[in-house]
Amino acid sequence: MKLTILGCFSATPRKETNPTAQVLEINNHIFLIDCGEGTQVELRRKKIKFSRIKHIFISHLHGDHFFGLVGLISTFRLLGRETELHIHCPKGLKEVITLQMKLADSWTNYPLFFHELTSKVSECIFEDDKVEVWTIPLDHRIYTNGFLFREKQGERHLHMPWVIEANIDVAYYNKLKQGHDVYNKDGVLIDHKKVTLPPRSPKSYAFCSDTAYNESIIPIIKNVDVLYHESTFLDKHISLAEQTKHSTAKQAAQIAKMANAKTLILGHYSTRYDDLNEFKREAQTIFKPVKLARDGKIFNFD
Amino acid sequence: MKLTILGCFSATPRKETNPTAQVLEINNHIFLIDCGEGTQVELRRKKIKFSRIKHIFISHLHGDHFFGLVGLISTFRLLGRETELHIHCPKGLKEVITLQMKLADSWTNYPLFFHELTSKVSECIFEDDKVEVWTIPLDHRIYTNGFLFREKQGERHLHMPWVIEANIDVAYYNKLKQGHDVYNKDGVLIDHKKVTLPPRSPKSYAFCSDTAYNESIIPIIKNVDVLYHESTFLDKHISLAEQTKHSTAKQAAQIAKMANAKTLILGHYSTRYDDLNEFKREAQTIFKPVKLARDGKIFNFD
Repeated sequence: MKLTILGCFSATPRKETNPTAQVLEINNHIFLIDCGEGTQVELRRKKIKFSRIKHIFISHLHGDHFFGLVGLISTFRLLGRETELHIHCPKGLKEVITLQMKLADSWTNYPLFFHELTSKVSECIFEDDKVEVWTIPLDHRIYTNGFLFREKQGERHLHMPWVIEANIDVAYYNKLKQGHDVYNKDGVLIDHKKVTLPPRSPKSYAFCSDTAYNESIIPIIKNVDVLYHESTFLDKHISLAEQTKHSTAKQAAQIAKMANAKTLILGHYSTRYDDLNEFKREAQTIFKPVKLARDGKIFNFD
Repeated sequence: MKLTILGCFSATPRKETNPTAQVLEINNHIFLIDCGEGTQVELRRKKIKFSRIKHIFISHLHGDHFFGLVGLISTFRLLGRETELHIHCPKGLKEVITLQMKLADSWTNYPLFFHELTSKVSECIFEDDKVEVWTIPLDHRIYTNGFLFREKQGERHLHMPWVIEANIDVAYYNKLKQGHDVYNKDGVLIDHKKVTLPPRSPKSYAFCSDTAYNESIIPIIKNVDVLYHESTFLDKHISLAEQTKHSTAKQAAQIAKMANAKTLILGHYSTRYDDLNEFKREAQTIFKPVKLARDGKIFNFD
């Protein structure tokens, strides 16, 4: 599991800072999460292959989370994309995008699907044999979802010396990987655990931005490996956080602690602060394993 | 008159190139012309004061000419702008912008006016005592206007030694500047030309992008000081130019020559070309005073 931060600041794009966008690589999927203005240039900078992005998740319809989307969709068209693209987003975004296509008389030449979200309870919005994605209803000024990405339990790994030693026919290898006991060529029942190794433990990632301090997300993200939680403000601006339905670094840490997250990543910083380390210091008074998102930073979690 | 090129490439924003946006400073006005994605960051880079931009002119609704506008409007709000803002644009853009504001539940706290254009003949769309702006109907795949910016003739300048010598009362100074003859304190009629200098000759700038080769614009831009004319393609791709309703460098030069422009600036290059000098070489086979737009370049015409 690999997370690339394309942008992690709130409000307006500036020379040195980008609004929210990140790429999650998980179990062979490349998911784009939020798409602030300038995201397509940051994707190029990171050499992320456009055609490998098949799903884009938009948390909410404040501009710093989606103003780059229409340009990206349009660029995909100009580059002759053929792969289908799925946008998971709050209701309304489809109208915004299609209106602009209509005015430009430029329709996509690739299949484009909008999956508009309206539910206020967590729901599974994508699932295949490798990964599932759930919404995390957040508490912000407008309808907002975070997203929980969860690898599925993979298959066990054959340990070939043991398998050969146990004299098992190749036809049974898949059954072993799936955790079944099988008979060997001599008619003896072989315990699958004796010839296979357990699968890598599945990873999970929760993206929670933008949101006020909101304990109701804890059951959804319980025991998550990595929690990205917004921390727009430092503690001294807690009243601003309350007013604008954002969180402080300490509040993010409190959520991480209560959810028993393994790692907390802070982001969505207000551009008023010069020293981001202050966010880490404040969060660590409550929860130790804290990392700071920074534009361009890559986190590897394997 | 000063022109700052924020972006001069066609199609998609990339690491090294920006889509169309430029700032024209003319007779104390700051006009923004087109607003591709990333324009607000380029404005910051050039330290152009946001509040001094009161009029934005959008040529047409292809994304590389307006995808940065909604973000700029939104940033103005976040920065607490109070100054009014006027958008001159094809019909449809108001709906695009207001739909996004509605979804974000974020209205501007400054007066925002859309002046939507539908006319297919040139019309005056802005005028004050210093400047006038006319549309230039262009020939592109969708409804498109260029814009002609024209300084008005200024007042004559008093040459004080001559004025004092001629013994003229201060009450008549304005009349002199406006080109009237006046009586001096001795009752003698003074020819205004004897005590004043002619005004600086008014400048004009024509922005023509995007367009096919189109001689019908020549009467509108006749004798213009500076013509920015798109040259998306080189001569070898003339059939692509015809197909997509764009121009070649030679065609831009032909228009400049027939319009008797003083200077031609080329821009809106396709990103397929590595050497922009080729555009200049081709254009100069027809018209000599050619300059190349480049992102970040500033042209001074005083």
